[in-house]
Amino acid sequence: MSTIEFRSDNSAGVAPEILASIADANHGSALAYGHDAVTERLERRVREVFEHDTARVFPVTSGTAANALALTALSPPWGSVLCHETAHILNAEGGATSMLGGGAVMTGVAGEDFRMTADSVRAALAAVGWGDPHYSQPSVLSFTQPTDRGTIYPLDEIAELSAIARGSGVKVHLDGARFANALVALDCSPADLTWRSGVDAVSLGATKNGGLSAEAIVVFDERAADELVFRTKRSGHVTSKMRFQSTQILAYLADDLWLRMARNSNERMVQLAAGLAELHVEFLNRPDVNMLFVRISDKVADQLEQAGLLFYRMGVETIRLVTSWQTTEADVAEALARFRSALT
Amino acid sequence: MSTIEFRSDNSAGVAPEILASIADANHGSALAYGHDAVTERLERRVREVFEHDTARVFPVTSGTAANALALTALSPPWGSVLCHETAHILNAEGGATSMLGGGAVMTGVAGEDFRMTADSVRAALAAVGWGDPHYSQPSVLSFTQPTDRGTIYPLDEIAELSAIARGSGVKVHLDGARFANALVALDCSPADLTWRSGVDAVSLGATKNGGLSAEAIVVFDERAADELVFRTKRSGHVTSKMRFQSTQILAYLADDLWLRMARNSNERMVQLAAGLAELHVEFLNRPDVNMLFVRISDKVADQLEQAGLLFYRMGVETIRLVTSWQTTEADVAEALARFRSALT
Amino acid sequence: MSTIEFRSDNSAGVAPEILASIADANHGSALAYGHDAVTERLERRVREVFEHDTARVFPVTSGTAANALALTALSPPWGSVLCHETAHILNAEGGATSMLGGGAVMTGVAGEDFRMTADSVRAALAAVGWGDPHYSQPSVLSFTQPTDRGTIYPLDEIAELSAIARGSGVKVHLDGARFANALVALDCSPADLTWRSGVDAVSLGATKNGGLSAEAIVVFDERAADELVFRTKRSGHVTSKMRFQSTQILAYLADDLWLRMARNSNERMVQLAAGLAELHVEFLNRPDVNMLFVRISDKVADQLEQAGLLFYRMGVETIRLVTSWQTTEADVAEALARFRSALT
Amino acid sequence: MSTIEFRSDNSAGVAPEILASIADANHGSALAYGHDAVTERLERRVREVFEHDTARVFPVTSGTAANALALTALSPPWGSVLCHETAHILNAEGGATSMLGGGAVMTGVAGEDFRMTADSVRAALAAVGWGDPHYSQPSVLSFTQPTDRGTIYPLDEIAELSAIARGSGVKVHLDGARFANALVALDCSPADLTWRSGVDAVSLGATKNGGLSAEAIVVFDERAADELVFRTKRSGHVTSKMRFQSTQILAYLADDLWLRMARNSNERMVQLAAGLAELHVEFLNRPDVNMLFVRISDKVADQLEQAGLLFYRMGVETIRLVTSWQTTEADVAEALARFRSALT
Repeated sequence: MSTIEFRSDNSAGVAPEILASIADANHGSALAYGHDAVTERLERRVREVFEHDTARVFPVTSGTAANALALTALSPPWGSVLCHETAHILNAEGGATSMLGGGAVMTGVAGEDFRMTADSVRAALAAVGWGDPHYSQPSVLSFTQPTDRGTIYPLDEIAELSAIARGSGVKVHLDGARFANALVALDCSPADLTWRSGVDAVSLGATKNGGLSAEAIVVFDERAADELVFRTKRSGHVTSKMRFQSTQILAYLADDLWLRMARNSNERMVQLAAGLAELHVEFLNRPDVNMLFVRISDKVADQLEQAGLLFYRMGVETIRLVTSWQTTEADVAEALARFRSALT
Repeated sequence: MSTIEFRSDNSAGVAPEILASIADANHGSALAYGHDAVTERLERRVREVFEHDTARVFPVTSGTAANALALTALSPPWGSVLCHETAHILNAEGGATSMLGGGAVMTGVAGEDFRMTADSVRAALAAVGWGDPHYSQPSVLSFTQPTDRGTIYPLDEIAELSAIARGSGVKVHLDGARFANALVALDCSPADLTWRSGVDAVSLGATKNGGLSAEAIVVFDERAADELVFRTKRSGHVTSKMRFQSTQILAYLADDLWLRMARNSNERMVQLAAGLAELHVEFLNRPDVNMLFVRISDKVADQLEQAGLLFYRMGVETIRLVTSWQTTEADVAEALARFRSALT
Repeated sequence: MSTIEFRSDNSAGVAPEILASIADANHGSALAYGHDAVTERLERRVREVFEHDTARVFPVTSGTAANALALTALSPPWGSVLCHETAHILNAEGGATSMLGGGAVMTGVAGEDFRMTADSVRAALAAVGWGDPHYSQPSVLSFTQPTDRGTIYPLDEIAELSAIARGSGVKVHLDGARFANALVALDCSPADLTWRSGVDAVSLGATKNGGLSAEAIVVFDERAADELVFRTKRSGHVTSKMRFQSTQILAYLADDLWLRMARNSNERMVQLAAGLAELHVEFLNRPDVNMLFVRISDKVADQLEQAGLLFYRMGVETIRLVTSWQTTEADVAEALARFRSALT
Repeated sequence: MSTIEFRSDNSAGVAPEILASIADANHGSALAYGHDAVTERLERRVREVFEHDTARVFPVTSGTAANALALTALSPPWGSVLCHETAHILNAEGGATSMLGGGAVMTGVAGEDFRMTADSVRAALAAVGWGDPHYSQPSVLSFTQPTDRGTIYPLDEIAELSAIARGSGVKVHLDGARFANALVALDCSPADLTWRSGVDAVSLGATKNGGLSAEAIVVFDERAADELVFRTKRSGHVTSKMRFQSTQILAYLADDLWLRMARNSNERMVQLAAGLAELHVEFLNRPDVNMLFVRISDKVADQLEQAGLLFYRMGVETIRLVTSWQTTEADVAEALARFRSALT
């Protein structure tokens, strides 16, 4: 029986348009380390897409690099990055920000639906002695948007929390590993989701949504951008043939490819969630984008695995299902059939 | 007049075989972060190529990452990495090893022909108080092979210096950004150039020789390899879709592609050097591989640039010429014609 | 009206015996950086006091240095230090361990009475993917003994939790900023409270209990001790005239001075707590040693301050009272009189 | 035969005035971490002594701490600290600045008499690509004054080199481990030797000149001072009972004590050098302050040691002789007698 991939959008392949763009960039020679025409074109394109004249872009090859470098450019070493207690940057990057940031720390903040709230952010800001070196000083508020549990912050929440942060001199970062999925879900512009809502820097992920090794830091804060020139290089995150990184993101942003792929992911999740709801499967999150956590017995999980369904087990009787740009309607229909069979 | 590229082998494109391997890897889904079949195949292949049963391989996307991570896995934070005073790791990586290594330092060691010598290494080892914490403790000896100035260590020199190092408990690293060029020049095996000569870890570069973003750390030291599992991830150097990194190196190592490309680079340099020697151009290094530094007047350099020759100016009346896998006999012939014209 | 000092045991002075020992050490000349006879004597003395033949001692001048250096010698940079969520090392050292430890992180663990429990430690150990570099790897379990809220772990709890930790290859640290107060409260030996209960390294505080600038790391783990030779120096924590540090701790450990001073602190707290209980003041911790948090209205706190009582306000309607080796029975009696007056 | 101490000024004892000041500070209670009246008085006193209204002072307990913390407050992590190739910060602090500074590097600069020159500094500034992240960016010029080899920069050289540095946006630090010896030798004011000559921060050493554990960072650069509030704490360099640090420096600066003690050191060296010159001993440095390196045969060195002379052997047939505030005329006379005897 054929396998159906719900483990991660990281497990999907590369979009043909992106692969083609790499071949296209492979003509003639070019200066290394980003001093090439493709990378220059990328910067212009990012400024158009984000409607921001001085935005800067730093292509990197992993989401951990994008997050940790962006955060360390926004935070002093004695800073504390506030994020939701389920955030990827806190739990799943091996202490990258603390290492690259000279000992900056992460502070988990509570909140329902896997989102920080105005109250929890205010409480975190009030819990420290400002200017007192015994306390790591809150320096960045980081949104994971969508969250690691597949929920999404409404635009006004981002703006509200950003304003609270900025009121205390705290910078704002957005971990957009699935940025396009959020754009589609919110039906808003990149500018709305970022600088217009108070965001200083965004980790713009493309790998999970059809890229090969395509992540980028998009920065609206000039000082942070100036630092990133050095921070990216000395952490080994300036590829020599950068044009092949830049071209991926150019192709990704062209002709709404990113939105079309994200829309497919999100819509396949709508289809999947609707079917599972009919089967009375218990949801552990509201599937705002392309990720769903459900409670099922180990026995059912075993059966689904035997039936060729690929997914992650996330602790006791919990599995995670992720759709991608490659998931088809037929995949979901077949998956639902297998669920139905396993559940009865 | 058409341009001829001698700036850097980094400026060249991607070999068609490597590009094709990426397309080939783009079928089906695969686990992320290196838990995929392509990456497993790469490890088996590296063990064959290096004739070493327990070698481990960590694909990364930049040479700085490969060097700095390998070095920090071999050195304690209070260590000192000995390298030639012209080494890339000392002068051109923005302090990467010191940052990623918790403050490890680099110690430049002298030596003619841009190579460390037994005497200079012994002197460096004797200059510190061993066990005395006032002194950074020599922890790694790092060869740049070929050197940043295009010369090459004979195998017996590597073995001799490695033995000196190991006699003091110092580990041995080889920066092989142009590893294949060295293999071809020395006509030796990967095993001879590395572990059989006492090397614990090698930065295996492929990007300069036809790769897209293909570098790898090959490690023969088990403890260092165990550390690299963590060190690569937390520095953002584990790409999620790693199969597309691994496949590049697999293609690179297949059917002697790497040696064929390196051989072209080296042979084109032989052709270029022979022609320049006839023109009585002053050489600043012995062009053992694909790199030549020559002294020419600024006026001549200006004329060459106007004639479409691309190269780097490296200080007063010095230019660097680098051939690549893409350089053709015709390119070199035409370049020599332009030199002849500029010099007369 | 005279002031009465309850702000911190840090606010107290230096014991005359310790001051005298400094004058005594000021004869003749001595090698710097710990290669002196006083420091050698200290090492022998520490081995006697801790009944451990290979214990090593590193005098430092602050508790933050003792904690952070001990922890980084026990943890790899990708490690995670587990401690109670109220621990000083997590909340009040400005990220020292993360900085000095190359990005090691701290993980707060819950537990009543400000103490970790077997369940909470087991849960923390189970929450990570062991060997998976996405997760900071639990590397050290750190007890604050007594806790920052004045409670104390019984010996069997320390032994139990240490055994759980060691079962997972996790090292054990004890932050003994008020170590002597714990010894007196538990009426146990230094060996019982440390290595016999599974502790690998202890931050032995003396400053809060009559020292001038006298802290020391006492290490039972040989590898950690070997690392501390380098870690202390390169962080600036090897004083040149170290004999004047060592002599303080020698005097502290002589003739039970440390226990006598700690006993006074603890007994004055018994006296104070008994009096406040009679006044029906609400306690927020069980005052096992020399520290008590109580709830009083802001109005009462204001009055007490006006009456010359010195204490810290710790958030809403909460104050902290700390007795020291210098606190007298008369001080406490007078303080209770002022409380009585303010409360009525 | 009695020993005579020439190993290090670190080997000398504590001045009685400084010891007395510690006892004087031991009255009443005081807030910890520098929020005490003695430390406030120290800041006022430092501003008077340095004739600078906004100077800030951070007492620490080691010279390595003073240097490394000052340098990291003046340098970004991607910076390079230029210093003479014999400087203590480069060779004898175990990589402290690189560790505490997030991977900042040290660049040794040549120059006769153990001093950097205008030419060597200009060359170092010209050797890098400014703004190019491949290169660590020169960020601080650090004078060791007096140098580690006992020579001294004239004021106009400090001003000239500082001006060159500042012209490139490079900050200026002065390692004044023996600051008072330099003041006496140059007969200039603290202001002349520091900010009036372009210095942004100075490591003001007192331990080698009669202090117990008394070093301080004096900062004229406001941003660096603001950073040091955090950098000192999180590296463990804020002692809790700081009044006992501050009082040492207050006593040191009172009634010209520091100058009187330094004058004795310097004058005893004049006496010693004159005597050794008469004996035709070969000098390896010009003894501008209290330190002399001489060439003598191993046989003579052995004899001197047997005769009770204490000194350091510094490599082949080289010994170092250091006088201190405690060295007497009789000590020197007796030492010269022993030299005479050993040499004949």
